Amino acid sequence: MAMAASSSLFTCSLQEGRCSPETKSCSKNFMCNYVNLMHKQLGCSESKHVRHSRFLFNEKSLMLKETEGLLKRKGILCRAVKIENPPSFTVGKKFQLDDVIEAQQFDRDTLSAIFEVAREMERIEKNSSGSQILKGYLMATLFYEPSTRTRLSFESAMKRLGGEVLTTENAREFSSAAKGETLEDTIRTVEGYSDIIVMRHFESGAAKRAAATAGIPIINAGDGPGQHPTQALLDVYTVEREIGKLDGIKVGLVGDLANGRTVRSLAYLLAKYKDVKIYFVSPDVVKMKDDIKDYLTSQGIEWEESADLIEVAAKCDVVYQTRIQRERFGERIDLYEEARGKYIVDHRVLEVMPKHAVVMHPLPRLDEITVDVDSDPRAAYFRQAKNGLYIRMALLKLLLVGW
Amino acid sequence: MAMAASSSLFTCSLQEGRCSPETKSCSKNFMCNYVNLMHKQLGCSESKHVRHSRFLFNEKSLMLKETEGLLKRKGILCRAVKIENPPSFTVGKKFQLDDVIEAQQFDRDTLSAIFEVAREMERIEKNSSGSQILKGYLMATLFYEPSTRTRLSFESAMKRLGGEVLTTENAREFSSAAKGETLEDTIRTVEGYSDIIVMRHFESGAAKRAAATAGIPIINAGDGPGQHPTQALLDVYTVEREIGKLDGIKVGLVGDLANGRTVRSLAYLLAKYKDVKIYFVSPDVVKMKDDIKDYLTSQGIEWEESADLIEVAAKCDVVYQTRIQRERFGERIDLYEEARGKYIVDHRVLEVMPKHAVVMHPLPRLDEITVDVDSDPRAAYFRQAKNGLYIRMALLKLLLVGW
Amino acid sequence: MAMAASSSLFTCSLQEGRCSPETKSCSKNFMCNYVNLMHKQLGCSESKHVRHSRFLFNEKSLMLKETEGLLKRKGILCRAVKIENPPSFTVGKKFQLDDVIEAQQFDRDTLSAIFEVAREMERIEKNSSGSQILKGYLMATLFYEPSTRTRLSFESAMKRLGGEVLTTENAREFSSAAKGETLEDTIRTVEGYSDIIVMRHFESGAAKRAAATAGIPIINAGDGPGQHPTQALLDVYTVEREIGKLDGIKVGLVGDLANGRTVRSLAYLLAKYKDVKIYFVSPDVVKMKDDIKDYLTSQGIEWEESADLIEVAAKCDVVYQTRIQRERFGERIDLYEEARGKYIVDHRVLEVMPKHAVVMHPLPRLDEITVDVDSDPRAAYFRQAKNGLYIRMALLKLLLVGW
Repeated sequence: MAMAASSSLFTCSLQEGRCSPETKSCSKNFMCNYVNLMHKQLGCSESKHVRHSRFLFNEKSLMLKETEGLLKRKGILCRAVKIENPPSFTVGKKFQLDDVIEAQQFDRDTLSAIFEVAREMERIEKNSSGSQILKGYLMATLFYEPSTRTRLSFESAMKRLGGEVLTTENAREFSSAAKGETLEDTIRTVEGYSDIIVMRHFESGAAKRAAATAGIPIINAGDGPGQHPTQALLDVYTVEREIGKLDGIKVGLVGDLANGRTVRSLAYLLAKYKDVKIYFVSPDVVKMKDDIKDYLTSQGIEWEESADLIEVAAKCDVVYQTRIQRERFGERIDLYEEARGKYIVDHRVLEVMPKHAVVMHPLPRLDEITVDVDSDPRAAYFRQAKNGLYIRMALLKLLLVGW
Repeated sequence: MAMAASSSLFTCSLQEGRCSPETKSCSKNFMCNYVNLMHKQLGCSESKHVRHSRFLFNEKSLMLKETEGLLKRKGILCRAVKIENPPSFTVGKKFQLDDVIEAQQFDRDTLSAIFEVAREMERIEKNSSGSQILKGYLMATLFYEPSTRTRLSFESAMKRLGGEVLTTENAREFSSAAKGETLEDTIRTVEGYSDIIVMRHFESGAAKRAAATAGIPIINAGDGPGQHPTQALLDVYTVEREIGKLDGIKVGLVGDLANGRTVRSLAYLLAKYKDVKIYFVSPDVVKMKDDIKDYLTSQGIEWEESADLIEVAAKCDVVYQTRIQRERFGERIDLYEEARGKYIVDHRVLEVMPKHAVVMHPLPRLDEITVDVDSDPRAAYFRQAKNGLYIRMALLKLLLVGW
Repeated sequence: MAMAASSSLFTCSLQEGRCSPETKSCSKNFMCNYVNLMHKQLGCSESKHVRHSRFLFNEKSLMLKETEGLLKRKGILCRAVKIENPPSFTVGKKFQLDDVIEAQQFDRDTLSAIFEVAREMERIEKNSSGSQILKGYLMATLFYEPSTRTRLSFESAMKRLGGEVLTTENAREFSSAAKGETLEDTIRTVEGYSDIIVMRHFESGAAKRAAATAGIPIINAGDGPGQHPTQALLDVYTVEREIGKLDGIKVGLVGDLANGRTVRSLAYLLAKYKDVKIYFVSPDVVKMKDDIKDYLTSQGIEWEESADLIEVAAKCDVVYQTRIQRERFGERIDLYEEARGKYIVDHRVLEVMPKHAVVMHPLPRLDEITVDVDSDPRAAYFRQAKNGLYIRMALLKLLLVGW
């Protein structure tokens, strides 16, 4: 699976036939407290068998006992070291999802499988009786910067599935109080309190570091200018849900294409589908950068730049509008004002858009979509926000209890 | 019912005989995501039947299926537009409570019905086994300014009934991050994550705007200098619970009557009862304003102003003390100091008070009630705070599962 | 039991044979709302029988009915007054734990009993099905200053046992909004919303004041420079869990011994065991103070100071490292830098440490333990943090449902 290549997260092996016996080491440089203690009590110092604490967790009642027995019988346990040959994600028929760190970790099949679960989640959420799929599981939302929208979406997802939540929006206090505790130490503490960590951080790459440390699944809820993979997933899911297909789709990406994390990720993921056509419509100062254009070309995806939103809207299945971010313009308020007024989705855009097409937006929006658009059935942005709930429910289920 | 007149919130109709067929439109200008999507998929553009998303919610497992069938069969669904003839709140034998926005929306019968449920809630809360009445329901506390006391009271109420809570005390971050997202957009996002929103806002009228937008119930937990209806309800409930009646009651309102939202609401609600007598006891600078006095007179309620707390306390069933708010005096600390020391409830007041009477206070208190009063059984203010829990439990039950 | 002497918290009596009939009064100066209301309604003013609201709570479904009956039949109820002869904590075979305020309240037998429950909690936490021992109970975390680590640990403990949580990390807002509400008034309000309060405060003695006011159990989660008893308990528990014994143990306390609350409490509690030997290893500016040294001597505990960490580490079962707190040095950064670099636990320390020994640290750590130590099985500090969860689970169970 393509995932294995780009993901930094690995599944390790158990001797007893569950995984390939040749895997002898593990990317996780720290085993869970329990395993470490066992290790110590057994006086073991050699690294013979690797046991990924993730398994412990996902099937914990069953496997813990098995493993305890195994460990005691054999008197051996590994220390975690660097992995050399990452095993495939395929465990049984379906892949095993370990962490959600970046959009690139998902290939077409994985996306399709996740979307199938998200549809199931829609049915669950609409059923008033409430699901108990994640009963007994505890999610920690470890937010180093506030993001109320994202946090509430994850917490709602967990609670809709019967799970429980530990919340912190001031995770910086962990380190400030400590005058310098490392992220790794914080993760090792919080993983002792919870079964999964949803982390928001101000530094690019923080989620990857957390996942390398943690013995429980990590979901990246945005790490600085880096990744925000659940937003990317919900965007693609919304396109498929609204239009009914992804192959052959025509998408207009509008607004701040230079700085917008969401449009960049969306372009990246759409490149996995066939006969996709992408239109870039943006003020000159915030044009789509060459890396994405080059990537699309390399993947055989047609794209073009246009200065005419009306013309593009008339041809597209999806008009994906984004906010021009004032904070990117520094003191050049004049440039900002010029840029933000240039491409507005309003009744004139609606008039030319096909009946089956939709307007999307990652929210929040200012006036780049006028309020009168809201009542049009093609205004999909609030449904898109809601889809974030279903995608997050699906990911929590997949990470905690599997398929 | 009187509620219909002053409330901005309406119950809409279903074609299938549940509600009056002449109602063709709805005050809610935005339908829930689900309905909107159905609309889009059905390609419907005409507004023939209105379906209030509230129903979806309150009886969702049952009605969703019915409605899905109906919609598919008929291929029609409305868009939300302005309502012209608000229907009565009477659905079945009892009224349907949609939102809690302002004290004025409650008439005598409604108050009495709510109080009956609150009594039931007292019994439930005292039973250790815990209620599951709201199991599967999710409440979002959307606080634009912190109010720990009110928030904890609502969250306790929800949890005592088996419901779950999403908390945010920094809801301003929703809009600050967005550099200007509207309240309406925020509500549309949060209603996708929850079943009911308890909102605290710094602007008068915000709760009404939220309720006009949301497809789920809104409870106003205070909107700036505007309303704080659950405080008003718990005050009247406490009077009835402590004294055993509301008709014929004599109440002394003491302290800051000019700025005190609670005493104004209480006076307003007491006017709904018979043979009530109200005494105003306050420093000159913070006298009760004419609008309430005129209203009481128009309702045939006797009132008088007095400068003698002892004399009033000797005659009253309830002495309702309030805090003089320093922040109202600006730099005139001298006026503040003079005002705050003037009417103190202490042992001398207790001595003249009838045995059956009580002292109330909305809390927090400073020294306007001395600490030695606390141990007197007539000190009702902590019981009053606790009654807030019962009233909020009752409202959550009524809004989410009905009578 | 030793607890009775140093604890400020008492168990009171019921007439009906449950407790000693001679106890006629209660340290709690405020009875729960319910009892107070009953009192008022019964018109009772004499203090004949004392009923501790704690009982109400711990066995509430059962006893409430009994008591209601009793009260109604006899028409009498007490007011709370000062207790003169505190009864023993022995109720039935085991003592009754009412509040957790300070390390000194625990004697050897009590510690042993709590540790037994903590072991049971380890088993419960590892079982994926999830416990429901505290289902229906509501814990309020009332934090006057943030302490994310401690708060998450308590909240995880409550949720792992099926209980629910009300969170506030800005409890100061209670009083700031009020411009001066007393702690006592806040406690009286919050106890109406919850079944147990976990409190963090910036003032020494605050927890004791809260416990004197509350009719529900209080756990001190740190009160300023005062006490942090759950940290002390988890430290002793970790020593026993890792080494297998407490009598005859050799412990090296390293780092900031002058200001470290944890090492002071640990020394105090270790003095309860036999043949303990304590080594103090610290820079001159932050030496252990005389009060603890004198106390150890008075208890017959051997101790000595040493400047040689390697020598001490070679002899000890436990090396307890602590962080040198920069904030204690004011502008003398030079002294701070000198002190912090002096005693580092690194591979050289590990080399001399016995195989069965462990390194402990209350966390967060900076560089006083080097990162390469983490992978050694003797690095016990993250297991120690996890033990905090088990200790807090045990305390919550003991306070809420008893043995």
